[in-house]
Amino acid sequence: MRLSRCFLPVLKESPSDAQIVSHKLMLQAGLVRQTAAGIYAWLPIGWRVLQKIAQIVREEQDRAGAVEMLMPTIQSADLWRQSGRYDAYGPEMLRIKDRHDRDMLYGPTNEEMLTAIFRDDVKSYRDLPRTLYHIQWKFRDEVRPRFGVMRGREFLMKDAYSFDLDEAGARLSYYTQLLAYLRTFQRMGIRAVPMKAASGPIGGDLSHEFIVLAPTGESEVFYDAAFEEFDWAQAELRYDDANGLKALFDKVSSTYSATDETHDQSRWAEVPADRKRQGRGIEVGHIFYFGTKYSASMGLKVSGQDGAMVTPEMGSYGIGVSRLVGAIIEASHDDKGIVWPKAVAPWQVGLVTMRGDDPASIAAADDIYTKLTAAGVEVLYDDRDERGGVKLGSMDLIGLPWQLIVGPRGLANGVVELKNRRTGERSELSIDSAIGRLTA
Amino acid sequence: MRLSRCFLPVLKESPSDAQIVSHKLMLQAGLVRQTAAGIYAWLPIGWRVLQKIAQIVREEQDRAGAVEMLMPTIQSADLWRQSGRYDAYGPEMLRIKDRHDRDMLYGPTNEEMLTAIFRDDVKSYRDLPRTLYHIQWKFRDEVRPRFGVMRGREFLMKDAYSFDLDEAGARLSYYTQLLAYLRTFQRMGIRAVPMKAASGPIGGDLSHEFIVLAPTGESEVFYDAAFEEFDWAQAELRYDDANGLKALFDKVSSTYSATDETHDQSRWAEVPADRKRQGRGIEVGHIFYFGTKYSASMGLKVSGQDGAMVTPEMGSYGIGVSRLVGAIIEASHDDKGIVWPKAVAPWQVGLVTMRGDDPASIAAADDIYTKLTAAGVEVLYDDRDERGGVKLGSMDLIGLPWQLIVGPRGLANGVVELKNRRTGERSELSIDSAIGRLTA
Repeated sequence: MRLSRCFLPVLKESPSDAQIVSHKLMLQAGLVRQTAAGIYAWLPIGWRVLQKIAQIVREEQDRAGAVEMLMPTIQSADLWRQSGRYDAYGPEMLRIKDRHDRDMLYGPTNEEMLTAIFRDDVKSYRDLPRTLYHIQWKFRDEVRPRFGVMRGREFLMKDAYSFDLDEAGARLSYYTQLLAYLRTFQRMGIRAVPMKAASGPIGGDLSHEFIVLAPTGESEVFYDAAFEEFDWAQAELRYDDANGLKALFDKVSSTYSATDETHDQSRWAEVPADRKRQGRGIEVGHIFYFGTKYSASMGLKVSGQDGAMVTPEMGSYGIGVSRLVGAIIEASHDDKGIVWPKAVAPWQVGLVTMRGDDPASIAAADDIYTKLTAAGVEVLYDDRDERGGVKLGSMDLIGLPWQLIVGPRGLANGVVELKNRRTGERSELSIDSAIGRLTA
Repeated sequence: MRLSRCFLPVLKESPSDAQIVSHKLMLQAGLVRQTAAGIYAWLPIGWRVLQKIAQIVREEQDRAGAVEMLMPTIQSADLWRQSGRYDAYGPEMLRIKDRHDRDMLYGPTNEEMLTAIFRDDVKSYRDLPRTLYHIQWKFRDEVRPRFGVMRGREFLMKDAYSFDLDEAGARLSYYTQLLAYLRTFQRMGIRAVPMKAASGPIGGDLSHEFIVLAPTGESEVFYDAAFEEFDWAQAELRYDDANGLKALFDKVSSTYSATDETHDQSRWAEVPADRKRQGRGIEVGHIFYFGTKYSASMGLKVSGQDGAMVTPEMGSYGIGVSRLVGAIIEASHDDKGIVWPKAVAPWQVGLVTMRGDDPASIAAADDIYTKLTAAGVEVLYDDRDERGGVKLGSMDLIGLPWQLIVGPRGLANGVVELKNRRTGERSELSIDSAIGRLTA
């Protein structure tokens, strides 16, 4: 993408109305703009990051055997009356009257809707187990929206729902999502620690939240250093290996981790001092096993193998996709701006001409741009006629993993400069070597 | 995808509550389920088609130089008061009060929002021209939603917005989108005829709608047979060729086409009798050039090259992405079910075992499935233990381009059957030849 044809409004000053660093940086680097309290438009660079995150979530859900679909944003209140949640839900639910004065709502979650779809279409044990998911916008009418996309009102969530014939099956579905979550966050280049949680208004007795560690996190967390060493992408563990999944769950359960809400001083005292980790964290995912809470209240039954009717056991599994954009920035930035992990970076390389009016620099950069994009490398090419220092400052702010800098002096010696945004390491090398490095 | 792990509830009977064929087929083949009046959940097969269509739209918008972003669904009424449209819009607009009693709405379109973003962030002529787009859910509170996704309330739309410094530039942006639309629909395997249109509540004096020809279409259309012969994907025409774009527009303008609303008997009389085409059609796109209607009312100005302030000229460009699913089915089905054009088919091949309890058939089909998916072919594998006739009926209904049928009798002779869904043509060939044909 040529910056001269994109829409990337970078602010010169850090916005004073933002309280936390991710919100400041998302505004300053042109990722989002607020269009109403707690509601954001995603500008091209922010949209690219959001898509990268959503795509990783999608691939890991698919790999775990969940099937993608899409439920609508607007729901009928009648659905929620069937489960009893319409009255139980507080003013966070955005309630709407349509032109015929029917009670509607902007969905904050989809247990009722998918249970109703299953009730109407699934009749036999042969159609279970099944886990379906969607990635859709939700609305929660926060009384005081703040911290940018971290606590906005309209937000993008992945929510999956599992249906099983018995508790053993439902627990296996739960472990499957647990593993998928650990792999998902690891792929994004962040560390998320699973912590046993209360299940709140969703109901149920087995629940974990996933906390990204960041100094500016909203809650205090405590965990065993073992969580820093686990490699969840380990090839040995397969989704069809029930014993392996159970062992993973036991390992997670037996290794200490807690938020301040669930912190247990006596168990914490048992963790060796050199393995105690305390810090702050941001919730980016939450999973629940709640048995027959919705299937029973909404009348979902299937015929079992022996002909008797069975009420399926369910779970639901959420990931805050838009919230992750903020959480990743909280976990990965420095005083110059964002430092994107490679897997979620909007582009991999920022190509900069130091002199946008120098024909030799332009010709060299155009050629590099053509070659890198032809090789499938995602490049943001700052081809504007703008001062080199300004461009480099913008690139640091935007935080792409690599910067490739083309200037008249270097070109005279046949070299360009390649800078690693995270380490700050710079090296001068020939154009061919630079291209080779970036396409390797 | 193995059907035994998917969620594909096919109805035995054609649903009696659906009035048009696409609605019937979308329900029967398990693409969608209605969750409230005019609001649909997209089940996995429908979701795949919707994504295919959206991706073609996206690729052609990108190719035409438009930049993707994402605006939220919920908007502030204040934005619409600035343009004067809040009061002008009828009861189709879903109006909402949030918990602080502020007037909000579910966006039916985004002229106001993007104009406001530009007003705050774009200051100089150097940042224009620019076309941005998003693919987002919209809401229109139809008094009588009907015809399934063809006239639903919550619907997916691609809407693009162009900003130019003068009318000449704005017209070029308009011609660019016109060409992009013609290419987009052609890639989907349908023929869409552009027709001069009234611009309605969007405003402005230059507007075209794009009509897909289908016998069950909602309006009567008249056009010159030349529109059946144009090849919009012609490689010669490039987006940076302003003269070529203008010539394309002149060609479209000078070739007769009209809906019953704009039909002109005297111009129609000039079309040679053997070139007159009359039929029915469905609107799938609508583009508008409306000058400074929104930029002027909302105070968007940029400094021009000579230092004087300029009010940008704008256009907007919509494609009904979810409506296209219905429109394509209206244009492409037979008495057995849907006949998907290859480019938007949810999977390319339906692999069927005639005997789901025959070990040799299962082994052969498993092997074919592994080889085809490894080669990147999208396969829906009906691996259920279900009667062969039922499976074949479902495959015809679902309408994948190819069916590959594995049965004990064929296997004994070393052959499988390959069926072309559109032509009905069947051939017996060896497994290797069949795989070769499908991966060629």
